[in-house]
Amino acid sequence: MRNIKLTLEYDGTEFVGWQMQANGPSIQEELERALHQILGENVKTIVAGRTDAGVHARGQVVNFRTASAVDPDSLTRSLNGVLRPEIVVLSSEEVDTQFHARYSAKARLYRYILMTRPTALMRNHSWYVGGYTLDIELMGRCAEMVRGEHDFASFCKSDSDVDHRRCVVSRAEWRFLRPTLEFEIEANRFLYGMVRAMVGTMVEIGRGYRAFDDFEKILAARDRTKAGMAAPAKGLFLERVIY
Amino acid sequence: MRNIKLTLEYDGTEFVGWQMQANGPSIQEELERALHQILGENVKTIVAGRTDAGVHARGQVVNFRTASAVDPDSLTRSLNGVLRPEIVVLSSEEVDTQFHARYSAKARLYRYILMTRPTALMRNHSWYVGGYTLDIELMGRCAEMVRGEHDFASFCKSDSDVDHRRCVVSRAEWRFLRPTLEFEIEANRFLYGMVRAMVGTMVEIGRGYRAFDDFEKILAARDRTKAGMAAPAKGLFLERVIY
Repeated sequence: MRNIKLTLEYDGTEFVGWQMQANGPSIQEELERALHQILGENVKTIVAGRTDAGVHARGQVVNFRTASAVDPDSLTRSLNGVLRPEIVVLSSEEVDTQFHARYSAKARLYRYILMTRPTALMRNHSWYVGGYTLDIELMGRCAEMVRGEHDFASFCKSDSDVDHRRCVVSRAEWRFLRPTLEFEIEANRFLYGMVRAMVGTMVEIGRGYRAFDDFEKILAARDRTKAGMAAPAKGLFLERVIY
Repeated sequence: MRNIKLTLEYDGTEFVGWQMQANGPSIQEELERALHQILGENVKTIVAGRTDAGVHARGQVVNFRTASAVDPDSLTRSLNGVLRPEIVVLSSEEVDTQFHARYSAKARLYRYILMTRPTALMRNHSWYVGGYTLDIELMGRCAEMVRGEHDFASFCKSDSDVDHRRCVVSRAEWRFLRPTLEFEIEANRFLYGMVRAMVGTMVEIGRGYRAFDDFEKILAARDRTKAGMAAPAKGLFLERVIY
C-alpha cells in the first residue's frame, strides 16, 4: 500500500468541522467521498489537526493508504475537479509508509484574524471586534507569556480527552496591519479550543474588560472556567503543519 | 436638504450588480431599503461607479439628499445594523450640496485579482487561471500601452450608451504577489466592461493564445469584437473613488 500526503485549503464556513458528524457536512466526509470517486476505494484519512465547525485551513495535512498507482499530480487535479469549491487540494505527494499526518507533525501554526472595522468581504474569515479600542501592547505582553512550555488547561475545553495539557509554544505574536489584527501561534501541539480561548481572553484584556494581571493568574490556574470567552471560529485558520 | 456621502464595501457575489433589476437583489435596492428603514424617507442614491453582477467594492461612493438631521457616525452604525452582511458602510459624512458621487469624481481605481493556483478561500474573490503559465513581462508591457489617453472602444461593450470612448489612464500595472497576480488601473472614467475586457485580453496574450503585437492593433481598432473574452466578474474590485 502506498502512503499519500495531501495539503488542503478549505473554507470552513459551511461545514460542521473536520470530523464526520450527523448534523451536517464535514470536510473529512467530502474529501473521502471525492477520494472514493477518483480511486474507487474506501479511503480512511488521517488528519494533522481536527478543525472545528467554521474554522478554515490554508495548509491542513492529511495522509491515507491506497492500493492505487495514481500519479500524485493527476490526483490533485482530479480531486479539485470533483470536490466542492470550498475545499482545494494544494498538493499531493507519495511519502514514506511511516509518515502519519498527526503523529509525525513537529509543530502546527495557527493564525487568528480580527478586524477593527466592519467588513463585508472578510465577514466569514475574521472576527469584527467593534465598539471599543484594543490595547495592542497589553495583548502583545499576553502573547509573550504563552511562549515556552506551559500547562494550558485553562485554555482547553474540559471535555478534551488527553493525558496531559502541556504544550511548547515556539511562537506567539500579535501584528497590527490596520484594519486587520492578526495573532500567530506555533506550538508542538494544540488542545481543543486552545487558540480561540486564548484570543478571546487576550481581547477581553485588550479592551479593558479584564485586568492585564489576570492573564498570568488564568494561565497558572489550569482551569478553563477562569479564562475568557472563546473567540468565534470564523477568524481561525490552520496555516501550516511542520514535519 | 442635506447631502450625505457614504463609502461602501460590498461582496457582489450574491447580487445582480449595483443597479436595480427584476431578476434578483441589487446593492442599490438593499441600500435604499436600509436608508428608508433608518431615515423614514424614500431616498434616491447616486453612485460613483455602477458595478456589474458579481463585482465587488472596497471603496464605492454614494451620495443622497435627506431632510433628516441624522448624525453621520450614528447613520453608519444604524445602517450596518440593518444591512445584509454582504454590504458594509465604512463611513458617512455630510458634504457640500454640490457634491455628486458620479460627476464630482476625478478618478476611479479598480483592482483585478487573478490566482495562479486553485483557491478555496478566495474562490468568489478572484479568477483562477490554471493549466498554463503566464508571461508576466508581456502582460506588463500591455499595461504600459493602456496608460495615457486613448479611445478604448475595443474594450467597451458595444451597447454602452456614451457619447465618446476616450479615457485617461493615470495608472495601469500588474503585480505578482505569488500566488496572487493583481492588475491595478486608475482612470478618469471607465467604460462598461472595460477592465474585464482588458484583463481577459492581457491574459490571452500572457498565456500565448494571442501574439503580443495584437494588443496594439486591438487598441487601435476601436472595435470590441477584436479584443479577448471578458475576465469573470468575481475577480474585480472597485477599490477607491478619488475626488
